[in-house]
Amino acid sequence: MVKKGKTTSKRYRFKGRIWIEGEGGTFLGYGRVVLLERIKKYESIAGATRSIGMSYRHAWDLVKSMNSQSEKPLVTAFTGGRRGGGARLTPDGEKAIKLFWKFYEDFRNFLQKEEMKFRI
Amino acid sequence: MVKKGKTTSKRYRFKGRIWIEGEGGTFLGYGRVVLLERIKKYESIAGATRSIGMSYRHAWDLVKSMNSQSEKPLVTAFTGGRRGGGARLTPDGEKAIKLFWKFYEDFRNFLQKEEMKFRI
Repeated sequence: MVKKGKTTSKRYRFKGRIWIEGEGGTFLGYGRVVLLERIKKYESIAGATRSIGMSYRHAWDLVKSMNSQSEKPLVTAFTGGRRGGGARLTPDGEKAIKLFWKFYEDFRNFLQKEEMKFRI
Repeated sequence: MVKKGKTTSKRYRFKGRIWIEGEGGTFLGYGRVVLLERIKKYESIAGATRSIGMSYRHAWDLVKSMNSQSEKPLVTAFTGGRRGGGARLTPDGEKAIKLFWKFYEDFRNFLQKEEMKFRI
């Protein structure tokens, strides 16, 4: 059987990595956004870190970095409740997640489109 | 003076890195394409590496990697001439440079467009 018209989009894969920088370096990236999602889910930084195997100290540094670079914080502490408090996303935190995944999706579409155009 | 309407496109910078993978890992990336351009300019791998401070061995590995992953080689050796030979780009080598820079430029435009949309 003769294989005809093998497309180069199969031969080559277009790859990339994206992130958003603020005044103090990285502001949002894949790992940070996953951390935000877990904080939302567990309502706690400790719970979030346990679920992704990240050190509490590192997670705390990332949250501080995001909070200090955005106009309003993305994560806030709350007290009270059954477990005596925790951490929650602010509306801007929720927005950051949505906007980043949109950026990410647009990027994947961009790569796919570019890959289709590539002929060598 | 009151500064009004500060855009977030100034607050945040959208960043990224792109490359093209073949069957054996990376096929084309920023550094590889610059190497191809220098080979074209100096008609020699040794000359190219001197101009960018890369070891000959590393450059040779990159050329082998690119040649083996493309349908036809991107770089070929030639003999003769004043200096007794050297290396030249093939038509596909020339095409690879052009296509990669187009991809790169499209990516920069993509990032700029995404950055303008971002409001947090």
